[in-house]
Amino acid sequence: MMAEKLDKHILKNGMVLLGERMESVESVSFDFMLPAGAALLPEGVCGAANVTADWIFRGAGDKDNRQLGDALDGLGLHRSVAVGSSHLVIGSSLEAGNLSEALNLYADIILRAGLEDDQFEPARQLAIDDVLSLDDNPRQKVMLRLREQFYPKPLGRSTAGNIEELKNLTAEKARQITRDSFNLSQTIFSVAGKYDFEKTVKQMEKLFETDSKRAAGTIKPKPKPAEYTHIPHDGAQVHIGLMTGTVRVDDENYYNARIAISVLSGGMSARLFTEVREKRGLCYAVGARYHSLKEAAGVMCYAGTTPRKAQKTLDVIIAEFNRLKEAISEEEIKQAKAGLKSALILQSESSSSRAGSIGGDYYMLGRVRGLDEIKLKIEQTTVDSVLEFLRSKPFEDFTVVTIGPQQVKVK
Amino acid sequence: MMAEKLDKHILKNGMVLLGERMESVESVSFDFMLPAGAALLPEGVCGAANVTADWIFRGAGDKDNRQLGDALDGLGLHRSVAVGSSHLVIGSSLEAGNLSEALNLYADIILRAGLEDDQFEPARQLAIDDVLSLDDNPRQKVMLRLREQFYPKPLGRSTAGNIEELKNLTAEKARQITRDSFNLSQTIFSVAGKYDFEKTVKQMEKLFETDSKRAAGTIKPKPKPAEYTHIPHDGAQVHIGLMTGTVRVDDENYYNARIAISVLSGGMSARLFTEVREKRGLCYAVGARYHSLKEAAGVMCYAGTTPRKAQKTLDVIIAEFNRLKEAISEEEIKQAKAGLKSALILQSESSSSRAGSIGGDYYMLGRVRGLDEIKLKIEQTTVDSVLEFLRSKPFEDFTVVTIGPQQVKVK
Repeated sequence: MMAEKLDKHILKNGMVLLGERMESVESVSFDFMLPAGAALLPEGVCGAANVTADWIFRGAGDKDNRQLGDALDGLGLHRSVAVGSSHLVIGSSLEAGNLSEALNLYADIILRAGLEDDQFEPARQLAIDDVLSLDDNPRQKVMLRLREQFYPKPLGRSTAGNIEELKNLTAEKARQITRDSFNLSQTIFSVAGKYDFEKTVKQMEKLFETDSKRAAGTIKPKPKPAEYTHIPHDGAQVHIGLMTGTVRVDDENYYNARIAISVLSGGMSARLFTEVREKRGLCYAVGARYHSLKEAAGVMCYAGTTPRKAQKTLDVIIAEFNRLKEAISEEEIKQAKAGLKSALILQSESSSSRAGSIGGDYYMLGRVRGLDEIKLKIEQTTVDSVLEFLRSKPFEDFTVVTIGPQQVKVK
Repeated sequence: MMAEKLDKHILKNGMVLLGERMESVESVSFDFMLPAGAALLPEGVCGAANVTADWIFRGAGDKDNRQLGDALDGLGLHRSVAVGSSHLVIGSSLEAGNLSEALNLYADIILRAGLEDDQFEPARQLAIDDVLSLDDNPRQKVMLRLREQFYPKPLGRSTAGNIEELKNLTAEKARQITRDSFNLSQTIFSVAGKYDFEKTVKQMEKLFETDSKRAAGTIKPKPKPAEYTHIPHDGAQVHIGLMTGTVRVDDENYYNARIAISVLSGGMSARLFTEVREKRGLCYAVGARYHSLKEAAGVMCYAGTTPRKAQKTLDVIIAEFNRLKEAISEEEIKQAKAGLKSALILQSESSSSRAGSIGGDYYMLGRVRGLDEIKLKIEQTTVDSVLEFLRSKPFEDFTVVTIGPQQVKVK
């Protein structure tokens, strides 16, 4: 593992500053996790977070749209913007020397976005077009719908948006939502790579510290049963999304769950890949991965196949999920561990990946896990611990969504 | 820039070994660039490289399909496989300590793949399914067709494959193509991250060195005029691909071309983004990037829009390409430089990106450019040098491909 050193500071208003220094890199990456994700919005404005994500970059502080774009481009920023369930995450990777200037611009964007009427319409139109474009991207569409179907409302609310609700959204309403949702008391700032934490803290205090604290918005999820949805689509493929519940990141069985999912879908000889794709040639793509919100978590599986093979593909996938608790070999556990550990090492070498991880950990767990801790927990899993976990919390009750020319039966 | 040190060794058979050591990483990435890309195949077997790419991993040396998968997974490899125009590139990122074992397995895969009859059919079927799946991915489909349309034959040959030709492919023919195309004399091996070059060279000598040298396969490209192709598709979007010729990586104007393309499409305030997307709301996605083969190069542009806005989108994009040579501001050049330089720094910190870059450089240029050299060349460009380049080699004669419910007119 790389040497790691976690920096942490909390501003008076509750905003959390986290940092992880990385030796001998010249870059730095930062993320602002703003509590403005899709699930936190009021009813009836699904997609407003996506409008916000675009609109706040169309002029801020004393800069208009063009001037702000010029200023960001002048720093050579590689921007990232992502609307999630809980957060709108805006961040950048850049040359370390430009960090301070970038933070000044981001403070303007977060605290003093212009949100002008004339910039609202194009921002909304692009959000609508993004939703429309899903029609030509059935793979992404099936997974968005799967999340909606699987998670209790409003946790799974589409992170792309709803066309009707976007059409009804006004500039006034969107402005109010944006301002309400940017609650600094619930914001996490994370930075990784080359930076001076003391200097960064001083700058962040100037930019973001206030005396006022505000509570978090609350979500009251409504439980829902597993169900099947089919979206008719006149294409040559069937896209299958399947999800089943499992433990959250804060659960003692978290690493057992991760290993179990790797046995299903970690590498070349993982079960889904060999049974569904290699041996039977049932589909051109198949994979399962862990997906977690703070409130709930699941195993998310995708398969792309032809109408003729769709039913068999689904049957074999579900059979593999069911069969997992029966037996797992030492060899499989060894491979799953090797895969997870090497993924960890590769992620530890990317400043943007680390900035995202430490912020995510803090939100999910209230603390940041060290890489050595994660490695140790992975190593501590055994065939017995994974099987015991699977028998106590089996992968069952599958939520299934398909897009394609015909339905399947979920048996 | 990071400290960099290029290692280089050439085996007696001509196989090139390149390495770039990176300080304080624990990972290593390697690529084998095998001269088995789509353009180098005989006529009538388009897609055979994709079958090869799958088939060689289905058992090699003394290991069957399952044993090989287990062995690779046991090392925690993150595999990459890519069929390009000139090369089939197979590689991995992994913990540095497992490099030697991984190279032993890759030597088996490259030199002693089983290529058994019973593993051919599933490999071919997956290649066919991959081509079929493009129907549900019009964005990728339009860009593949654009390359075919733009580059002289057979350079632009589809890197996904042709269904009819794949259906006619036999195991015997595919085996012969695989064995013929894996010419070690034209193979480039690159490694980046943490490794011991002396040790690696010794191992590679044992594994790959022979006395026999073989010449490269030759390609005789047939020039073709720019043209327009429309692929009817019953969707809600129009996907536009547009390409125009420009200088290759070995041209003295290469950096002027890269800066020019960045002015069009580098950052938030780049022209295509502001003119087409931001100001006029014409499309939800637009971008242009440099694309180069050894023999020819171009600017590759994509736009996703609605049928109603498709014509206007194309017109504005072409107008922006044409207008570029008229004037560029100092500010635009400054931003383009900042963007290219920061991309360079971020890439320099990823072992897989560096392994790919040094191998690619060697193939294109016969040498590896240092990061400082690239940085200097970027800095040396000026408004005048870029404009002079654009006036002598303007972006014109556009090859256009569209997928969607209606055609456009290329004016």
